[in-house]
Amino acid sequence: MNLGKVVGTLVASQKVSSMDGLKLLLVKYVDSSGQETGGQVVAADAVGAGIEEFVLVATGSSARQTDATDNRPCDAVILAIVDSWEVGGDIVYKK
Amino acid sequence: MNLGKVVGTLVASQKVSSMDGLKLLLVKYVDSSGQETGGQVVAADAVGAGIEEFVLVATGSSARQTDATDNRPCDAVILAIVDSWEVGGDIVYKK
Amino acid sequence: MNLGKVVGTLVASQKVSSMDGLKLLLVKYVDSSGQETGGQVVAADAVGAGIEEFVLVATGSSARQTDATDNRPCDAVILAIVDSWEVGGDIVYKK
Amino acid sequence: MNLGKVVGTLVASQKVSSMDGLKLLLVKYVDSSGQETGGQVVAADAVGAGIEEFVLVATGSSARQTDATDNRPCDAVILAIVDSWEVGGDIVYKK
Amino acid sequence: MNLGKVVGTLVASQKVSSMDGLKLLLVKYVDSSGQETGGQVVAADAVGAGIEEFVLVATGSSARQTDATDNRPCDAVILAIVDSWEVGGDIVYKK
Repeated sequence: MNLGKVVGTLVASQKVSSMDGLKLLLVKYVDSSGQETGGQVVAADAVGAGIEEFVLVATGSSARQTDATDNRPCDAVILAIVDSWEVGGDIVYKK
Repeated sequence: MNLGKVVGTLVASQKVSSMDGLKLLLVKYVDSSGQETGGQVVAADAVGAGIEEFVLVATGSSARQTDATDNRPCDAVILAIVDSWEVGGDIVYKK
Repeated sequence: MNLGKVVGTLVASQKVSSMDGLKLLLVKYVDSSGQETGGQVVAADAVGAGIEEFVLVATGSSARQTDATDNRPCDAVILAIVDSWEVGGDIVYKK
Repeated sequence: MNLGKVVGTLVASQKVSSMDGLKLLLVKYVDSSGQETGGQVVAADAVGAGIEEFVLVATGSSARQTDATDNRPCDAVILAIVDSWEVGGDIVYKK
Repeated sequence: MNLGKVVGTLVASQKVSSMDGLKLLLVKYVDSSGQETGGQVVAADAVGAGIEEFVLVATGSSARQTDATDNRPCDAVILAIVDSWEVGGDIVYKK
């Protein structure tokens, strides 16, 4: 999974019907210190994530292994909201 | 999914027969401000997207999960036309 | 799919038997103006592509969705020879 | 598989239920001399890896082919702890 | 497939049992002139490749389509040893 921060929302009314009902969030990837790396993804939200929250994003076929995304042409899903992480024993982020 | 802008069309008459009937569009990836990132993809169009429109592209096996691309050797599909997106509460793009 | 140009051929006699009979071509990826991007791939040829031709390459599991590559450990296939493409209404390439 | 070093742990209590019980570790990718490359991944731990250990990470659908990750929306798994590796006959790392 | 050069070996005794018996080689990716690109992968060896040999590596789900890797959490396999390749009619490498 990749670590990212939710930075925005995206609306698309014209889409394949199998994408109906999915909330789409714009996520910027971050490094282990929480800084943006320059990468981004538009991911389906399976956990009710909010703006500025750190999240875990799964991509590829694994993104279809949730109830929200099963059998949909979805290649990126937010599957967890991050509470905290630490590097080398030091807490980098705590919600 | 990745956010991109349709910039062109591509014609290929000599192809595996399972790709027959798919419209192929050239899409440049854009960042959260709508600027091109340098990346691109040739994607099958499943939604009737037009030149200069912002779209969502799914890649990998997920690109085969639409009626248009099912069982085809297609690894990139345009599955939505973007109406708008916002970052940090500010509207970046509105169609 | 990715846009590329066939630049060479590759021979490998010692291989897993399931790769027998596949023609392997060296493809360099190109951008929307036809310039090489620096990336490359060795792809199975499913369409009879020749040196210097622009082609479309599918990668990942989609590369196994052709008659030529079905059930083989092949992760890249040339599935079309490009006739032409245009960007912003201007023809960039025409065979 | 990619070679990486475990650098930290990550906690996420709000997640899709199918991720319950997986230990999530933050892994930085390293090159053949053991130096960090700048890339990272959050991977499920299938082998009981510890901080500072060198590990092998599988990504994509292959990450779901372990007992720990089967049928989960997991796209990265630590499947081995590295004992040693050598380059050109010289031992680069030995645990 | 990606073109690479075998540069070393890797030993991992603590691993998921489904990886037992696979020989793991460290492969550096090379460009069309045989120069290292900076990328690398740890791949299962399905063909008996040796140090300094040029090989083809398949990644992703395709890496599981060999007898050696079937149903294993393996995302990279060496499936061929390269005899020769040429670019633009000139032989770049011949074993």
